[in-house]
Amino acid sequence: MKYIVVLSGGMDSATLLYDLAQQRAAVRALSVDYGQRHVRELGCAQLLCSLLGVEHRLVDLAGLRPLLAGSSQTDDTVAVPEGHYAEESMKLTIVPNRNMILLALAGAWAISTKSDAIAYAAHAGDHAVYPDCREKFVSALAQALHLADWHSVAIVRPYISLTKADIVRRGITLGVPYQHTWSCYKGGAVHCGKCGTCTERREAFELAGSKDPVLYEEG
Amino acid sequence: MKYIVVLSGGMDSATLLYDLAQQRAAVRALSVDYGQRHVRELGCAQLLCSLLGVEHRLVDLAGLRPLLAGSSQTDDTVAVPEGHYAEESMKLTIVPNRNMILLALAGAWAISTKSDAIAYAAHAGDHAVYPDCREKFVSALAQALHLADWHSVAIVRPYISLTKADIVRRGITLGVPYQHTWSCYKGGAVHCGKCGTCTERREAFELAGSKDPVLYEEG
Repeated sequence: MKYIVVLSGGMDSATLLYDLAQQRAAVRALSVDYGQRHVRELGCAQLLCSLLGVEHRLVDLAGLRPLLAGSSQTDDTVAVPEGHYAEESMKLTIVPNRNMILLALAGAWAISTKSDAIAYAAHAGDHAVYPDCREKFVSALAQALHLADWHSVAIVRPYISLTKADIVRRGITLGVPYQHTWSCYKGGAVHCGKCGTCTERREAFELAGSKDPVLYEEG
Repeated sequence: MKYIVVLSGGMDSATLLYDLAQQRAAVRALSVDYGQRHVRELGCAQLLCSLLGVEHRLVDLAGLRPLLAGSSQTDDTVAVPEGHYAEESMKLTIVPNRNMILLALAGAWAISTKSDAIAYAAHAGDHAVYPDCREKFVSALAQALHLADWHSVAIVRPYISLTKADIVRRGITLGVPYQHTWSCYKGGAVHCGKCGTCTERREAFELAGSKDPVLYEEG
């Protein structure tokens, strides 16, 4: 199987990259700068691929930013909310149509490299706030991608039944260097520890009974 | 109704832009530089929008080019084929996953501007060679877009039952300045008259009994 992995540089996609690489699958990784607030995670993506010897493409699409107004992740006038994902304010972190854009770009590269599938690290915990993490969204998009070319490309989500804690457990057995992953929405010198994704990351490591090797602002 | 029109600057999308603008719909137009062989049509798109006073966004995504290898439109190592669309060589002009990428980007802008629909100028003549012009591809993608956000965006294709000649007839009654549209795949000083899209354009004007105001290389 030949895969294109959608690699943000966060802990989930990093784990997936290691997973597929260790299965000796043919893997290419795609990261996209879509004008997000910071590019800390993209640096991690690049480093992980060079550690593994995986072909990596980092595409500069920062020109997209004007299309993505209103999200704290792509619009400097909107502050990053703090707290847990269940909170209404977390909706501010939704980037309009992000998943369709990422999968469309990965689909293009998959078609031109005659890859079999796009792999991405959707998991059991990430559907609550984000409309484009819903199962039925992905099913419809997978159907569209299947029809987008004469050569058919699938979408696979190996972690769809795993929680974030399960992913950490798996990553530890795979030897994922989590110190070289980035989750925080804010992009400071160290992880803030308070935004939605920091909150989830800390919980995941705690539930997995493991110490998160990244540094946090407080404690 | 609030629309995002996918505007290439070719004759079909130019006609659609004039059509919606004259229906006094709220219209924004999106054009994308995805690293195509030439940008003649993007200049046309810009001019048409300024003539109509329509908000236009031209997004520079030329960084996409490395993902789109193998197409004559985005890969300098592949020559533009000549002749009619029915020919096998025309498959070289397929840009991998282009329609999904364009619709995904238009979808993002539609979501962030709370528009009701994306309008694009698919027509009855353009499904033969391009897999992502097939009805079932668009249906699946429309379903995905409907689910991509809490605010639902539709995809409309007002010309899906029209031939290219029908579009020319309609455009003439709307007063579309076809001299400010660009179709030729090659992007020279004038239209080559021989590539697939020039061939179709000439046929369309001939069938509509009208003179095409653009200049062609020979005659």
